[in-house]
Amino acid sequence: MRRPQVVLFGDSITEQSFRSGGWGAALADSYSRKVDVLNRGYGGYNTRWALFLLHHIFPLGSPHPPAAATVFFGANDAALPGRTSERQYVPVDEYKLNLRSILLHIKKCSPDIFVVLITPPPVDEQGRKEYAISLYGEKAMKLPERTNEVTGVHAKICVELGDEMGIPSIDLWSKMQQIEGWQKKCLSDGLHLTETGNGIVYQQLQKIFNENWHDAASMPSDFPHHSLIDASHPEKAFIQHSPENAATVQQCPATDNGSASA
Amino acid sequence: MRRPQVVLFGDSITEQSFRSGGWGAALADSYSRKVDVLNRGYGGYNTRWALFLLHHIFPLGSPHPPAAATVFFGANDAALPGRTSERQYVPVDEYKLNLRSILLHIKKCSPDIFVVLITPPPVDEQGRKEYAISLYGEKAMKLPERTNEVTGVHAKICVELGDEMGIPSIDLWSKMQQIEGWQKKCLSDGLHLTETGNGIVYQQLQKIFNENWHDAASMPSDFPHHSLIDASHPEKAFIQHSPENAATVQQCPATDNGSASA
Repeated sequence: MRRPQVVLFGDSITEQSFRSGGWGAALADSYSRKVDVLNRGYGGYNTRWALFLLHHIFPLGSPHPPAAATVFFGANDAALPGRTSERQYVPVDEYKLNLRSILLHIKKCSPDIFVVLITPPPVDEQGRKEYAISLYGEKAMKLPERTNEVTGVHAKICVELGDEMGIPSIDLWSKMQQIEGWQKKCLSDGLHLTETGNGIVYQQLQKIFNENWHDAASMPSDFPHHSLIDASHPEKAFIQHSPENAATVQQCPATDNGSASA
Repeated sequence: MRRPQVVLFGDSITEQSFRSGGWGAALADSYSRKVDVLNRGYGGYNTRWALFLLHHIFPLGSPHPPAAATVFFGANDAALPGRTSERQYVPVDEYKLNLRSILLHIKKCSPDIFVVLITPPPVDEQGRKEYAISLYGEKAMKLPERTNEVTGVHAKICVELGDEMGIPSIDLWSKMQQIEGWQKKCLSDGLHLTETGNGIVYQQLQKIFNENWHDAASMPSDFPHHSLIDASHPEKAFIQHSPENAATVQQCPATDNGSASA
């Protein structure tokens, strides 16, 4: 009885998604006893570098490919050329090509997979500056290494690609900016997410998953709910739950422990 | 490149461990890019019912058995006979036998596995009462369905078994009661964990894992850290990281996207 897997593929905003209040952990919690949520977030990665991971994370010919995935890149691709994070910069045209390659590969790995694209969040330039000063003091960069405007171009292309390929997307860049005071409310350092920011990603994602994939509440759990177990004959509930495993179910406690099901 | 898996096997306190501030999510976060933490928590289950799951969760002969596991049962086994949760009650002698069966099976499934036993947390009887009243008003049970004393007997047996079998254990029942005001600080409804309670499980577990299994900070990550990637020749870092995959690494972007590694 293998659980379906959801792979979260992205950069640091995915890698950090299991921190307290994180969107990845929240998704794992809402699908508990139903789905395994695997974190494949790689801090600092852009789509160009992500291509090197594709065959490892989504191997072709796997007997059990993931059932769903999120693809959440762009925050690093949108670093500006000529500034301190230049090495991460990927021009928007290549960003689109890379994202397309990622999506095509994932579909090739698992034709029935449900994929959701997520745009980078907006950038609070003042927040980035303050963060740099908190780290480097006077030596901090004078010019922001990312701007909200350029990240917005990447975000727009990401949504556009989703539309072209028929893949649902979350326009996080636009969504967050609808919130009064998004700069501090949603972002912890002008780029990464606060608990509120994480909550927005989770809510948007859960909505899309519920409506287009499996509804978290009504998806069946693995193994019977404890209230369905007859205390005098616990084996019944397990046989009923998976009749094909009747032999194993009956054998299990007997093999392992003669004293069970008293 | 398959990541080692840690399986968290237990009852609702495990099932809920990916909620905000949860100990399971915290463990997953500290081992991000290193280990997959799988939640196998089953709310309401006691050790007697857990036996029915053993062969499914820890199948014998698996080519990739888990590398580590937590076994965290007892809160339901310690429900009192003759009270409202009687059906979950498992006498302490059987609890010990069942736990032993679980541990022996896990070791059989994966001889090199690292296992940590966790005792049930203490019970705040007043908190349970208040919780029942909040749900059922006047119809709430008059007598607590669990007592701290009986849960303590189960906890003691759990630690004793760990000592007998050479398996490290966390005596959560004792540990939490060392905290002033543990009743409300650590428990949300007299039984389940608050964020502080979750923090205690996480800290204890992380300490044991760091000292006896893999230290989370020094365990190698999968794939190179982004700072080690040469922006002009990204393939180098990936070949260096996994020389056996040189062919795939070089081929990857070329196959997927002619424009990569500019």
